[in-house]
Formats: sequence, C-alpha cells, structure tokens
Amino acid sequence: MRKLFQEDLLNLGDQLADIAVLVAEAMDKAYRSFETADVQLAEEVIAADQRIDAKQVDLDEKAIELLALQGPVAADLRLVVGALRMSTSLERMGDLARHIAQLTRLRYPDTVSPTALVTVYREMAEKCHSIAKKLVELLVTRQLDLVDEIVALNEQIDELHAGVFITIAKPDWDASPASTADATLASRFFERFGDHGVSVAHKVQYLVTGEWETKPTA
Amino acid sequence: MRKLFQEDLLNLGDQLADIAVLVAEAMDKAYRSFETADVQLAEEVIAADQRIDAKQVDLDEKAIELLALQGPVAADLRLVVGALRMSTSLERMGDLARHIAQLTRLRYPDTVSPTALVTVYREMAEKCHSIAKKLVELLVTRQLDLVDEIVALNEQIDELHAGVFITIAKPDWDASPASTADATLASRFFERFGDHGVSVAHKVQYLVTGEWETKPTA
Repeated sequence: MRKLFQEDLLNLGDQLADIAVLVAEAMDKAYRSFETADVQLAEEVIAADQRIDAKQVDLDEKAIELLALQGPVAADLRLVVGALRMSTSLERMGDLARHIAQLTRLRYPDTVSPTALVTVYREMAEKCHSIAKKLVELLVTRQLDLVDEIVALNEQIDELHAGVFITIAKPDWDASPASTADATLASRFFERFGDHGVSVAHKVQYLVTGEWETKPTA
Repeated sequence: MRKLFQEDLLNLGDQLADIAVLVAEAMDKAYRSFETADVQLAEEVIAADQRIDAKQVDLDEKAIELLALQGPVAADLRLVVGALRMSTSLERMGDLARHIAQLTRLRYPDTVSPTALVTVYREMAEKCHSIAKKLVELLVTRQLDLVDEIVALNEQIDELHAGVFITIAKPDWDASPASTADATLASRFFERFGDHGVSVAHKVQYLVTGEWETKPTA
C-alpha cells in the first residue's frame, strides 16, 4: 500500500507538469495572437482553456481521493495539499492567457497593442512563457535553482508592468482611451501570470526543502 | 473523538466567517478612502490586510492539522478541503480591497476616480461590500438563498464593469491617460472581488447540498 501511495504522489506531480505544459503553450499562442491580431489562434487558446480546467478538476479529484483513501500525514499530506494549491494557480494562469486571447478577439481586426508598447508586451509575454516552461522543468526535475530564475523573471515582468504606466503617463502617449484601457488590462494579465508562477515555484520549493520562502503578496 | 472533530469543523466555519468580516470592513474602508482621497484610511486598510493574511495562515494550519490528526473522509473531507479553498479566495478579496486603497495612496492628494465614474464605482463598491457581508451571513447561517443574492450582485458588478469600458470609449471622455489606466484597474479590482465572492458562495452551497453549481470562469 505504501509503495502505491508514493507512486500516486509522483503521479500528482506529473499531472501538475502536464497542466503547466498546456499553460506554457496557452501563453505562447495567446501572445502570438495578440501581437498579430490572429483571431483564429486566439479562438484556439480560448477553446483550449477548457482542457486546462478539466485537467485541474481531475487532479483535484485525485488528490481528494488520496486524502480519503490513504490519510497521508506529515510531508505527504503537505504534498497533496500543495498539489491542490498549485493546480489552482496553474488553472488561473490558463485563465490569464485566455484573457490575453480574448483581448485579441475583442479588438480584431485591429491589434490590441498601441505601437509604443509592442516590444514591452513581447518581452513580458516571453518572460511569462519562460516562467511556465521553467515550472514544467521544476515540477519534473525539482531542481531548485529554477525557483530563483522564476523569481528573477517575475521581477523583470513587474518592472516592465511599472514601465507601462510610465509610458501611458508620458506627454507623447497618443492611444485612444479605449486602447489605453486595453493596454492596462493586458499588462495586468501578464503581471498576474508571473505572480502565480512564482507562487507555484515557492510551493515546490517548500515541498522539497520543508522551508517556506515568504513572498510579499502582490 | 468524533464529537470533538465536528466541533473542529464548526470552528473552521467560524474562522472563515471571521475573515469574511475583516474582508467586508476592508472593502468598505478602501472604497471610502478611494472616493474621498483619505490617505490615512487607505493606510489603515493596507496595514489591516496583514491581519487577514495571518488569519488565513492560521486557518490553513488548522485545516491541515485536522487532515493529519483526524483523517476525515467523505463530506467531512470535502469540508476541510473546501475551507482551504475558501480561505484562499477570502485572502484574495482582502488583497483586492488593499489594491483599491493603494490606488488612493498612489494618487493622493488627488482622488483616483474621474468624475464620470464616481457613482459607478460607488455602486460597484457597495455591491462588493454587500457580497462580503452576505458571505459572513452565509458562513454563519448556511441560508442558501444568500447564494443567489450574491450571484445576482456579482452580475450587477459585471454589468457596471462592462459599463466602465463603454464610458471610457465615449467621445466626451476627457480623463488623462494615467487616470484612464487607474480607472481600468479599479474597475477590474471590484470585478475580481465579486468573482471571488461568488466562488466562496458556491463552495458553501456545494458543502451544504453536495451538488456543485458550475460557474463559468471569469
């Protein structure tokens, strides 16, 4: 029984990694749709989010079943509870990628991004995509140096996010108010995506080391 | 032992209600600070958010202890897992109230809200406050008609949120781009607060009835 349970715990980790793969793909496609006003790609991201949601439900049911049938304690219990929390964060990251795609669809055939912010968003999106890919690697390998890399990427996203507001407040900002609102939301979506990524990374770290790295809340 | 456990479960409900009381208070004060540019009140909300965070950590530790010591199954297990999830949503609602207060502080001594949106934000904030107060009542009384009331309030918030973007896109919108960005974020914070409120309400409903009311994700 004990052996089976350890296998179940490893399966939870694999399920989390599977979700993270889909999240990384969602962010990559969402951003490409956003930059190029590719409404078909946007629709793909929006539809694919249901798969992420379904996988989260599966994982959560599996975790609750483990709690019920195995009554884990100590580190194993923390791992199952941690998996429940990580799945929530990953699901939310999928939602945020979908929100980016929804902005694409809303403004089609126009592009969402004002010209002044195209490169900023591209950088934010690349860093978001990179965070999601590193989460996959972290969940599979438990190489904790990836946590610091994810934290660093998120700090860069936060700086870019702050920069968006500076750009918007500049005298030469000439986008329409509606476009300014879209630009604000898009930046916020990238920023939240990064925060959730850090949250997942810190949970993996905690489960591996038993030490909680406190993170200032966003 | 069995009796003690039922008492522990009731205590979890009380702890959730305690957090919801603080969240309701935070939203009320955050909005008053936002409308009147009362930076002192805003600072109070920002500082008080740490109490919400600490109470969430307490509740989560208690819930994990229950899982470890009592190995609950079936409905009791769902209740403990549900409590963990509700605490996450409530903590997030506290964060969103704090974000409103942070906007107040950022723009002080100016008010954040463009004149055209003062009444809209007031309505959104009142509905958010009302949702949080109804959550307290729901957690204490388990009167499920409150769930529908919370869902209805959230729909009204969503409509007001959509209205903000219509207002911003109108030709007579004359707020500065920075103010447009603030206005967008504020509206988003209220909207997310309502969504989390519905999420908590649906979890209470599920725990009472055993039937999951699916909710389209935001």
